[in-house]
Amino acid sequence: MLEVKSTIEHVAGFRVAGVHAGLKKNGKLDFAVVISDTPCTAAGVFTTNQVKAAPVILDMERLQSHAEKVRAVVVNTGCANACTGQQGIYKAQQTARWAAEKIGCDENAVLVLSTGVIGSQLNMYAVRQGIDIAMQFLGHEWFEAAKAIMTTDTRPKLASVTVAKKNGDRYQIAGISKGAGMIAPNMATMLGVIITDAQVPQPMLQRALKTASDQSYNRIVVDGDMSTNDTVLLLANGATNVVLDTPEEEADFTEALTALCKKLAQEIVRDGEGATKFITVNIQGAPDDAAARKIADAIATSPLVKTAFFGNDANWGRIVAAAGRSGVALNPELMQLWIAPGEADDQRGISLQLFAGGMPTDYSEETAAAIIKEKTVSILLDCGMGKGTSTVWTCDLSHDYVTINGDYRS
Amino acid sequence: MLEVKSTIEHVAGFRVAGVHAGLKKNGKLDFAVVISDTPCTAAGVFTTNQVKAAPVILDMERLQSHAEKVRAVVVNTGCANACTGQQGIYKAQQTARWAAEKIGCDENAVLVLSTGVIGSQLNMYAVRQGIDIAMQFLGHEWFEAAKAIMTTDTRPKLASVTVAKKNGDRYQIAGISKGAGMIAPNMATMLGVIITDAQVPQPMLQRALKTASDQSYNRIVVDGDMSTNDTVLLLANGATNVVLDTPEEEADFTEALTALCKKLAQEIVRDGEGATKFITVNIQGAPDDAAARKIADAIATSPLVKTAFFGNDANWGRIVAAAGRSGVALNPELMQLWIAPGEADDQRGISLQLFAGGMPTDYSEETAAAIIKEKTVSILLDCGMGKGTSTVWTCDLSHDYVTINGDYRS
Repeated sequence: MLEVKSTIEHVAGFRVAGVHAGLKKNGKLDFAVVISDTPCTAAGVFTTNQVKAAPVILDMERLQSHAEKVRAVVVNTGCANACTGQQGIYKAQQTARWAAEKIGCDENAVLVLSTGVIGSQLNMYAVRQGIDIAMQFLGHEWFEAAKAIMTTDTRPKLASVTVAKKNGDRYQIAGISKGAGMIAPNMATMLGVIITDAQVPQPMLQRALKTASDQSYNRIVVDGDMSTNDTVLLLANGATNVVLDTPEEEADFTEALTALCKKLAQEIVRDGEGATKFITVNIQGAPDDAAARKIADAIATSPLVKTAFFGNDANWGRIVAAAGRSGVALNPELMQLWIAPGEADDQRGISLQLFAGGMPTDYSEETAAAIIKEKTVSILLDCGMGKGTSTVWTCDLSHDYVTINGDYRS
Repeated sequence: MLEVKSTIEHVAGFRVAGVHAGLKKNGKLDFAVVISDTPCTAAGVFTTNQVKAAPVILDMERLQSHAEKVRAVVVNTGCANACTGQQGIYKAQQTARWAAEKIGCDENAVLVLSTGVIGSQLNMYAVRQGIDIAMQFLGHEWFEAAKAIMTTDTRPKLASVTVAKKNGDRYQIAGISKGAGMIAPNMATMLGVIITDAQVPQPMLQRALKTASDQSYNRIVVDGDMSTNDTVLLLANGATNVVLDTPEEEADFTEALTALCKKLAQEIVRDGEGATKFITVNIQGAPDDAAARKIADAIATSPLVKTAFFGNDANWGRIVAAAGRSGVALNPELMQLWIAPGEADDQRGISLQLFAGGMPTDYSEETAAAIIKEKTVSILLDCGMGKGTSTVWTCDLSHDYVTINGDYRS
């Protein structure tokens, strides 16, 4: 049984630091480095936004040519280094170069992540300072590193899991993420740095990350926007000498990585900008899985559904209406809708049917109100057409979301 | 020169009433009828939501079979009569039947519109009462009728225009609309009843309404959701004996109808739920018009763009990022972005370029802040790729939007 913890202890061969470089006001942590003592195989998943930030362009290139010998990831907040032209690319390269000089490695062995305001140029004086300070504080303070990559997050997001091979050998996978806003259901949707002390061939690493992301980061919605910077990087340094080789070992690694990413992704939704509720949207009976996903996304991004949840209003007609505009051909007569407290796999047997045969059931408005008031709520919509299923996690839309995003740059 | 007024005087052969039927609390107007003394040709555009309200299903059928002899439109608020199954259909039919009895016409000559909460059954006692009272107060109080179809609108929406034919004959087109939330850019996006005292062949009427809707109601965004009930109906009773016949007359009619619909549609955005700003999104240089429209919609529905406007924050990177996730292949290096105060066709020569060649221009943050503070702002994004253009009107996303929609049913 995999136990995914919300902490990270020592992971063999990795050192980290989270420091204040001067990119954020008030002395907040704003700069992090993750360094491996030895070269890592590395994999990445990136935003599908057509407007890609400079560090995304840089990392994509480096994973083409240098994915077998990555040594470090440098993360700055306060500035996305997106929409910054050739100057932005130079600055991402310079960031990597400075870190490489300190580490004593090839500059191509350093990857860079940025998050913050789009369209402003990176303050390289602060970056230089961040690298210098971080290198002095390298250690195992993962909590500090996770804090240093936050933007509007209210809490750091960490997770780790220990996996035992058949022969008793053990290795760890650990990761930090930041999210909060601009989280859309699409390939890679926030920043994440994941590491393992197992030795994993690069192609296996990339396959595992793709699978895990599809089941986790790509299933979360905060506001439906998608960032220019979304990236998840996965580094394997083999410091434990545990080698992953067989299909069975790959399956176990992928399973553990997926569980870890799921925990981090769900943490992003729970800590969504202004979020007061964690909502699981389950679709079944759709024509196929892709259609189910379309319906789930329409519901999960609907401002009317999200504000109704915020208002503790079991206004389920908005859920059906959102499904109806998803672009999937549906027959309302065949649809059935339930709500339940808790997460989909923890509904304590309580589930209330609201809609069937094209009309409301004879449900108790009181029970519906009691369920919708919970902090964790699940929806199940059965389309009554086929075998397509999908699950997406989302949050509500609150006053605080508007406050946070109306005031982001000031 | 067409002058579209915000009032409706007497339109020959039409009588209206807006009354309190008991569907809303506090004695508010909640029920309206529009009646023609003689049979009308009629046209309609309807929601493309797969979940259609009972009155939408009824009206679509009646416009198939009885579009040459429509006598009346009955509108109730407080209940959408959507997700109400066969019972909902019966109730929509019964509403029409009762009105027809009072008017003394075939029940198929009456169309029905509903708006309000989805998934609750219509209170037929109130509907009966609404019809009885309304028939006693028939007259030319269009302002009352426009008020009686409001939901979360803060003000009634009326418009009228007088058109002169070459020979000097004059006819009127007039309309009322309601909107406020759930306004997405798609075929028909709210309730509207439009009338004319010209005599217009039914096919011409349908063509003109389609064209006018595409240029008006289908170009507005409040929250990106799409209702189960959206309908615009157009009735022509020929009471003036002005006959529209020639292609030239059709063109003039379509032009006037488009101007009228544009005014009503823009009024819906100006009065969007919680809206504090009217934003015109102009796209040019897209691969084609459809691509331009996709980009415009992505920007106009982006919660991050809309909250930035609410916060008077010229955070233009979010506009570029929204374009980047629209699904259209774009090259940021070719993109250029401007903002300007006022409407697109009224920018007083002031236009500030923010982004070009993949990076920010050397613009004045002070000027940008001054523009974004205006109540009416325009964006122009040139993709630098082709000849595709699109214009969409939207509003910002405010605290009041969340309050209104978190609290809608109570």
